Formats: sequence, structure tokens, C-alpha cells
Amino acid sequence: MSGEVTVHELRKDLLLGRWVVVLRDSKGPEYYHIPASQEDGECLLCQRNISQKVILTIGEEENWKVKVIPSPDPILRVEGELGRRGVGIYDAMNSIGANEIIIESPFHDKRPEDLGLGQVDAVLEAYRLRIEDLQRDARLRYILIYKNHGALANAHYNHPHSCLMATPIIPKRLKEELDGAKQYYAYKERCIFCDIIHEELSRGLRIVLETPHTIAFCPFAPRFPFEVWLMPKRHTCAYHEISPEERADLARALSEILRKMKALFGDLPYNYVLHTAPNRIPRRNHWHTLGDDFHWHIEFMPRLQRTGGFEWGSGLYILQTSPEDAARYLREV
Amino acid sequence: MSGEVTVHELRKDLLLGRWVVVLRDSKGPEYYHIPASQEDGECLLCQRNISQKVILTIGEEENWKVKVIPSPDPILRVEGELGRRGVGIYDAMNSIGANEIIIESPFHDKRPEDLGLGQVDAVLEAYRLRIEDLQRDARLRYILIYKNHGALANAHYNHPHSCLMATPIIPKRLKEELDGAKQYYAYKERCIFCDIIHEELSRGLRIVLETPHTIAFCPFAPRFPFEVWLMPKRHTCAYHEISPEERADLARALSEILRKMKALFGDLPYNYVLHTAPNRIPRRNHWHTLGDDFHWHIEFMPRLQRTGGFEWGSGLYILQTSPEDAARYLREV
Repeated sequence: MSGEVTVHELRKDLLLGRWVVVLRDSKGPEYYHIPASQEDGECLLCQRNISQKVILTIGEEENWKVKVIPSPDPILRVEGELGRRGVGIYDAMNSIGANEIIIESPFHDKRPEDLGLGQVDAVLEAYRLRIEDLQRDARLRYILIYKNHGALANAHYNHPHSCLMATPIIPKRLKEELDGAKQYYAYKERCIFCDIIHEELSRGLRIVLETPHTIAFCPFAPRFPFEVWLMPKRHTCAYHEISPEERADLARALSEILRKMKALFGDLPYNYVLHTAPNRIPRRNHWHTLGDDFHWHIEFMPRLQRTGGFEWGSGLYILQTSPEDAARYLREV
Repeated sequence: MSGEVTVHELRKDLLLGRWVVVLRDSKGPEYYHIPASQEDGECLLCQRNISQKVILTIGEEENWKVKVIPSPDPILRVEGELGRRGVGIYDAMNSIGANEIIIESPFHDKRPEDLGLGQVDAVLEAYRLRIEDLQRDARLRYILIYKNHGALANAHYNHPHSCLMATPIIPKRLKEELDGAKQYYAYKERCIFCDIIHEELSRGLRIVLETPHTIAFCPFAPRFPFEVWLMPKRHTCAYHEISPEERADLARALSEILRKMKALFGDLPYNYVLHTAPNRIPRRNHWHTLGDDFHWHIEFMPRLQRTGGFEWGSGLYILQTSPEDAARYLREV
């Protein structure tokens, strides 16, 4: 082989069995172009426009911190029955569930990274309370909480907010993750996420930050450059069992990641998704692998590049920046 | 339930087990905004610039129809060894494989839908010959042929072309599909794709067109609005076993789909991906399910909307246009 041939690296995601390509000549943050964000018209999430039913308020009514409202344009609704049915050889059911918006601040112009620790903690508490409430509905199988920030990340509002979607099915990506974790547990009798935490902490080169209860790292075989996972050190499958101390710690870690991303990329469009255990899975007083094989976490995905036909059609992602380099940029900023 | 509550439909993909949401109030083609395409600078795929090694030429050298060249910026290369290795608890290997570009016409400005049947047939023959050749390399597990058209679909050139990527692993999306088909076969002792063809032909409402050897239809639970699958009626797992007659028929069907898309959307960015059986799977003289459970096809994906954090994080796609309505628009145009 001549010295000129660059051999890139194929890497396998331990959890999903997905291979990705990590290019050798990693690109730095300056490689990525961030389009300017656009301001929208009248904001539906601003104080004067929250006329509809409020599901949850954190803080005093006159001085509220976080409010949760039903989505003004819901795709899933609580009314009705599942109506599971066959359609020829296929399967269908009604779009039963819930769509909610978690308003992260009364102030339209606050950026998520500038909310302050107490405010982020209140947002994380709202996540917990909504999961705790909705999981009592036996028709719902999964409660997905996610954040779209910036129009390019499909945010519908510029006002700081997160979204909640409760579904009567386990969405495919989560199902794959649960299955992968279960398979690993069956083979090793250990939690795959605990093993990943141990591996990352002992190597250090993909760690972005570590707090008393949380680690944030760039996963070994991510889908996106500068992807970061936040994970509690304590093994627990259900986000809503987080303690107040752990929650405050997570608020600190999450704020720090947002600030680091801003320092590297400016007003970056991004998504993050909370991966927690599904509803209605017996988690205790049962055979030990049930629930013991999952470990909740947050996946943070910067929207730095479009994916093309190759990625869509194959599921083989190509990374212009290695996770080791991304972690170093994020650590050092 | 009041009459004002719209219940959408959740639908399950038979093959992958993926649920999607199909909205009730389907949007027509005018709902989607197609940004104007941009012209690039000097074209690397134009005649005068094809200075590098040509892998395959279809037609006379002076009057060629299709040429296949190595990618000028390959991610996977044929030189070297796989070098499978553990990296801590993870797995990695070298990016061995091939990256090729199939130049679909000598003429830069020809649009794929205007190439003409003979030309599209030559492109499809180039696909076949490249798969036949590359599958002899025992290091390669999969040969993926796909087309990115338009910058928004991640095309690197405006000159009509397709891409080939041969990988030493089976990409995740294909692996899932192969596993889904195998599971169905184990349960039903029938090919899932043959069952889908039968179902679609007998219902008709998702059929876009039918030719003697091919059907094109909008799948029941697609990821994207106006997604179309082209499938040979004859059960066969390997694309490269296509007969000349079937190939000419496929050229007709594919051209027709491209023309219909253009009629509805103008210069639409799109991707299509050929899904064929992987290499090195014993397909004959072996237990009857090997290979019998797969059925090659082409998935055509218009890039009509961005996907957001919810889709990325969950794998739950939301369709603004139902497959039945999309098929009707495409049939009637």
C-alpha cells in the first residue's frame, strides 16, 4: 500500500449492530456551515397566547418557570380507542396518544444554554412529572421527550421548548435499542450501558465531561459528527426515578454541553431525545433481566450535515469528524 | 368523540416492524416546496474530465452510452486487508470496499427522466455488470447502488449519475430487511415481497403503474410522502439475474416514475436505492429458505420534507400524504 491511500475506519455500534464509517482526516468545527436562524411571527408559546388548557405549571402562577400545554396541532390524541385492525395483510391502529409542549421559560428570547441551572432543573422535573403521569394510561407504550432547536432541526417555535409524544407503540429506534440491550444482557449478564460507561471512563478519550452523577461522551460509532450521549452513572432504566440530586447534576451537565456546542458552533440547530424504558414492562419483582437490561440516557444530535440517499437507503452513516476529535474539541472549548 | 377530532392512522411496516403515522387530511403535491437547484462549476463527470481509469464502458468508445469510473474521493478502497479488530469493548475494521460512479450519459444537461429508454436500459445493465464483477471479491458483503439527484438529496454532481458502494459489512437497513424477510418466510413459508405484490395488485389503490414484469406502488407504511417501490413480479433475490427483457421493462417503469415525479413536482431532489441480496450468501443447492426469502427491488424516495428530531430519535415517521393519495396523484398525472 502506498502512503497516499487513506484507510478510514468502519466501526460497529455495540448496541444496535450498526456499522458507520469514521473518516481518518477528521474535520474541525470550522468545516461545518451553520445557516442563520430566522425569527418567526407571533409566538404561540408566549405568555399572552397560552390561552388553552395548561397541563402542568412549575413555579408560582404569577412567576412560573415551566408550563406544559397540549400541542396546538396534535398528531396523537387521548380521546378514543386503539382500534387495532388488519388492513389486508398489513396492520393499523388509531393515533391514540398525547402530544404536549414543554415551555422551558416565560421568556421568548432566552436561549436554552442561558436559562440557568434552576430553570433547566425545572424543565427536567417537568419531563419527570409528565412521564410519571402519562405512564398510568395503559393504552400508551412509550413516552418520548425530545427537543428540536432551530428551524433546520424542525423546531416549530423559536421560544425555548421541548416536545412530548406518547405513543401506543414502541417506536422502532427505541425497540431496537431495547432489543440490543436485552440480547447483550442475556449474553453477558451485565447492562450494556454500564459496560459502555466503564469503558469510556477508563479510556477517557471520548469523554466530554463528568459530573458526580453523569457522564457525557461522544459514542464510539455515532450517526452524526459531534453527537453526545449523556448518561447517569447509576444504573436505572426509568428516567422518572431520577433523584432531585441527580436531576440537579444532570441540569448542570446538559447546560454545560449546550454552552460548549454554542462556543464551537454558535446558534447550532440540534435535537436531543430522552431514551427511557417503555411503559407497561414489568420492572420489579420479576425475573431479574426485565428492565435491568436498560439504562436511560439522553442522545444529543447536532444538525451539522444533511444525510443523503446512501445513508437513508443503507443505514451506513459517514462521519466527517471522529468521536475522539469531537470529544477533544468539546472538552477543550 | 366530537366530530372535530381528527384521528390519524398508525401503520406498521410488514417487513421492518416500523410504525409510521399517516395523517388523515392528506396534503397534495402543491403542499411541498421544492427549492431551485444550483449549477456547479466544472463538471468532473463530463467527457473531457474523465481522465482517470474507466472501469466499464457501455457502447462504442467513440459513442459511449454509460461509463463507470472510480469515485474521485473514495471512502472505501479495494487495496488492503479487512483488519477486523476489537477496540476495547467495541469492534472496528478497515474501510475496504469500492466506491464507483456510474455516469449515465455523456451529456451533462440530460435529466434522468429524459434519457430515453435505451439509455436507461444501459444504466441498468451497468448496475448488473458491476454487481456481477464485484461480488467475486470475497471480502465484500454488500454492493449498494443508489442515486442522489439534486443537491438537497446530497448529489455531488449535476451530471446524471448513480453511485456504487461495496462494503465489507451488510449495512444496517439492508440487514433489517433481510432479517424481516427471513422471519416472515420462516412463519409463512412464502416470500413477504411476493405477498405484498399480490396484496397490492388485488387492492389496486396504492399501485402507481404496472408493466409486464414490474409493479410500482406506494408502500403501505412508508417513511416519506410519495415514496415508491419498484418490484419485479418474478421472485428473485439477486438483481444481477435480471433478464434483458425484464431489464428493458424495468427501464420503462423507472423512466415513467421519473416523468411522473417531474410532472407533479418539477425538478425534485430524490434518492433511489437498489435493494438486492448480499454477497456470499449461498443461494442455490442449499436449504430452500436461503435466498428464497428475499426479493430485489428499488426504493424511490422524494426529498419533499426534512425529518426532525422526533423522527431521528424515535424512528417514528409522520406522513403528510397518505400512500393511497400519493399513488392516485402519480397514477393520474
